[in-house]
Amino acid sequence: MSHFIDLNSDLGESFGNYTLGMDADVLDHVTSANVACGWHAGDPLIMDATVRMCKEKGVAVGAHPGYPDLMGFGRRKMAVNPDEARTYMTYQLGALQAFCQQHGVELQHMKLHGAFYNMACVTPELADAVLDGLQAVNPKIRAMVLSGSYMAQEAVRRGIPVIQEVFADRGYTDNGTLVPRTEAGAFVKDPQEALERVLMMVTDGKVVTNTGKTIDIVADSVCVHGDNPEAIAFTKYIREGLTKAGVVVANFQSR
Amino acid sequence: MSHFIDLNSDLGESFGNYTLGMDADVLDHVTSANVACGWHAGDPLIMDATVRMCKEKGVAVGAHPGYPDLMGFGRRKMAVNPDEARTYMTYQLGALQAFCQQHGVELQHMKLHGAFYNMACVTPELADAVLDGLQAVNPKIRAMVLSGSYMAQEAVRRGIPVIQEVFADRGYTDNGTLVPRTEAGAFVKDPQEALERVLMMVTDGKVVTNTGKTIDIVADSVCVHGDNPEAIAFTKYIREGLTKAGVVVANFQSR
Amino acid sequence: MSHFIDLNSDLGESFGNYTLGMDADVLDHVTSANVACGWHAGDPLIMDATVRMCKEKGVAVGAHPGYPDLMGFGRRKMAVNPDEARTYMTYQLGALQAFCQQHGVELQHMKLHGAFYNMACVTPELADAVLDGLQAVNPKIRAMVLSGSYMAQEAVRRGIPVIQEVFADRGYTDNGTLVPRTEAGAFVKDPQEALERVLMMVTDGKVVTNTGKTIDIVADSVCVHGDNPEAIAFTKYIREGLTKAGVVVANFQSR
Amino acid sequence: MSHFIDLNSDLGESFGNYTLGMDADVLDHVTSANVACGWHAGDPLIMDATVRMCKEKGVAVGAHPGYPDLMGFGRRKMAVNPDEARTYMTYQLGALQAFCQQHGVELQHMKLHGAFYNMACVTPELADAVLDGLQAVNPKIRAMVLSGSYMAQEAVRRGIPVIQEVFADRGYTDNGTLVPRTEAGAFVKDPQEALERVLMMVTDGKVVTNTGKTIDIVADSVCVHGDNPEAIAFTKYIREGLTKAGVVVANFQSR
Repeated sequence: MSHFIDLNSDLGESFGNYTLGMDADVLDHVTSANVACGWHAGDPLIMDATVRMCKEKGVAVGAHPGYPDLMGFGRRKMAVNPDEARTYMTYQLGALQAFCQQHGVELQHMKLHGAFYNMACVTPELADAVLDGLQAVNPKIRAMVLSGSYMAQEAVRRGIPVIQEVFADRGYTDNGTLVPRTEAGAFVKDPQEALERVLMMVTDGKVVTNTGKTIDIVADSVCVHGDNPEAIAFTKYIREGLTKAGVVVANFQSR
Repeated sequence: MSHFIDLNSDLGESFGNYTLGMDADVLDHVTSANVACGWHAGDPLIMDATVRMCKEKGVAVGAHPGYPDLMGFGRRKMAVNPDEARTYMTYQLGALQAFCQQHGVELQHMKLHGAFYNMACVTPELADAVLDGLQAVNPKIRAMVLSGSYMAQEAVRRGIPVIQEVFADRGYTDNGTLVPRTEAGAFVKDPQEALERVLMMVTDGKVVTNTGKTIDIVADSVCVHGDNPEAIAFTKYIREGLTKAGVVVANFQSR
Repeated sequence: MSHFIDLNSDLGESFGNYTLGMDADVLDHVTSANVACGWHAGDPLIMDATVRMCKEKGVAVGAHPGYPDLMGFGRRKMAVNPDEARTYMTYQLGALQAFCQQHGVELQHMKLHGAFYNMACVTPELADAVLDGLQAVNPKIRAMVLSGSYMAQEAVRRGIPVIQEVFADRGYTDNGTLVPRTEAGAFVKDPQEALERVLMMVTDGKVVTNTGKTIDIVADSVCVHGDNPEAIAFTKYIREGLTKAGVVVANFQSR
Repeated sequence: MSHFIDLNSDLGESFGNYTLGMDADVLDHVTSANVACGWHAGDPLIMDATVRMCKEKGVAVGAHPGYPDLMGFGRRKMAVNPDEARTYMTYQLGALQAFCQQHGVELQHMKLHGAFYNMACVTPELADAVLDGLQAVNPKIRAMVLSGSYMAQEAVRRGIPVIQEVFADRGYTDNGTLVPRTEAGAFVKDPQEALERVLMMVTDGKVVTNTGKTIDIVADSVCVHGDNPEAIAFTKYIREGLTKAGVVVANFQSR
């Protein structure tokens, strides 16, 4: 029996005259792309170009909706209510879906961005509203969510196809949540250590926490980055290591 | 043989805390709605509510993309290039389409707004780009365009289903273009005169121009307004007059 | 000895094609205006027109900076850090100040809007940052703040001229904070009761709380509203009642 | 008798998470900075940091207002009317002025950006409106405008202090206008040739046009760029050449 894993990265985060990320490079190493939808980053020209590139490189496309906060890159918490969460997701998902239709590709998934992701994954009323919207638009679009989160569990319960996401470069607590960025053990910087952790998550479904405990974790996709040469080298290293270990690195459309 | 006509109006032009238009009222009198998509007007909550209301009242939904100019309500000319025109239309159409999917209605048409409409209908490179985008997303979505314009002719040539739009309250020149708002004969304010002109356009395919000449015109839909009580009374008068004269007032999804 | 009180209202909240508030009417009854600065509401044309109207009617002008959230009218909490708070306030204050310079009026005060006001008045690091910015721009501009709040106390401590604001239509807790909108006793709707409470605040420096206790309160200005005819009638009633009782209703530039 | 010249560059064009330009580097070589004001580029944090850097390096600060078109970087023509032009300039100038007040520096000048500059410099009703606004805010703020343009002549006529701007890297027509970017002779790429042309403009008040004719030109400031290493090397070369030739390179606040 083979183990499968998807590698996802945020893409299409440029805006107008501003360029961000090394999109063409990282696309050689990931299998799924979370494409910004014009609110926290991205604009229609960039969405169009990004979907075209993804298609050319065989990378699956996901919508990556964010808060209406370009100035803060969607990273600042905003007090958004459930109806706003649902319709903000729907609006951005729809916009990206139209570019997928233009390029003849299927939208694989939806992954919220930044503060929207952080709040919705763990806040039931927000998660429910976003899942309501996603199901109503198209129940075949997968929800990419924080592994083990409320939103992941609820998507499973509803029968929505789910992609549970883990992080190669982050530490986990005994509860399966990420160690906060301000605390010791938040980051895993050594590529070899990161690879070993990912392999354990993918093949055994386990991760060692910041207290040394081993807990269960579901790993459908690993989040990697492409905003600088080191990040791309790290991603390449993880992918090659996974392949060498016999894990099939592939998105959900090519399985 | 029956004559058919559609009545269309711009809707969903509120934004955040701001209310504009008497949407619930005008929906009782029109058969198609052009729903703002969040750029020149509208926001996701309003798009959602507007599509829901259209469904309840049996009014067909169209996307109404505008320029990225909320402060100017999309009425100011902007030097947008063909790629921008295509992707701006696609983005907004897609956003609205997702709300249609949520509510289980088919998106009937796409009508550009304000300065985007005025420029694209008569500028070949913009019209071509917008039609390219529309066809690529979904060739069944109708293009609602200025009757007789370059864009109308090109849509016909391509086999895109087209809705040629006429105006009940505006005068026409010998070329079939609208008399500019600053010139004599720009407006037809008397409801009875407007009704007679519409009836002539619908049943005979003719209109009398500002020089007294009679020219051919294709009338698939009549643009009416719903932003004040007078506009709604005018719309009601036109609809009742058309019905009384035996014209079937209906959108393109109910024929 | 006379008692003085200022009456302030939010103004200039229209935006582009959208009209909000009955600005011309409410200006006949208030002495100070908090003018929106283009972020949560308002735009340059409206700021210009509003400052002109204030000048004509002898109403003092204040800047009313809000969060960068036009879609949410600045009412949604956002996780803004102190540097952002300081520079967001400065940007908007400066923009309004330039219109004051054009019209030859002095900017009297700065009052934060909505969620920005609510968070900054009671969060020391935000209040400190905003006061730092205000002092650095011009230490003569008054800070209009929630009476008794951290920001009010800190402004006093720094020697910044302060306007402590009370509410005619709201209940107070024993701590001097407003009763939350969702709790009993949040609102005072009867105009006569409101007037009596305001008179007690102005002349005795006391208010009866929602537990029946009488506490001290500093009342430099009363916040009133102008967004509908009832609000304007309420404001007119309060002003006439104050005048009848011998209180001088005046802003801080005319004393 | 000494010849004076100012060197100006656009700065503070980053936005939120997006970085643009090599501001810290170019500030070592120019004497005046045109600081973006948050509409076509820039945000309050960046405006604050840019004014601080200008102060530290002794570079004079100018406001650089643009069209409300962040997505198009203010480079797209928009049909803005005179009242809009005046108030858009005023709003942005005011916002930057407040940061100057915070840092204790005088705002030296106002230079419009991109399409706003191009249209206003040569369109009398726009130029008049912008100059009306500038004079009303503070008649001591200089207007930096295209040398020889309507706006330059009108500013002189009104007695507004004017900075007539020339370009080191652009060709001129016999009318004193820039050779359009799409035509032969639009650009002067050789640094030595550019330096010789600038020296002739500064010391003789003459420039050789694209037809070989020699015409008069007023050169108060030379526009240079700082968005890439070549541009900075070019700027450094021009400045050193000017200094070597005995020209005093200085802004208008240090003379």
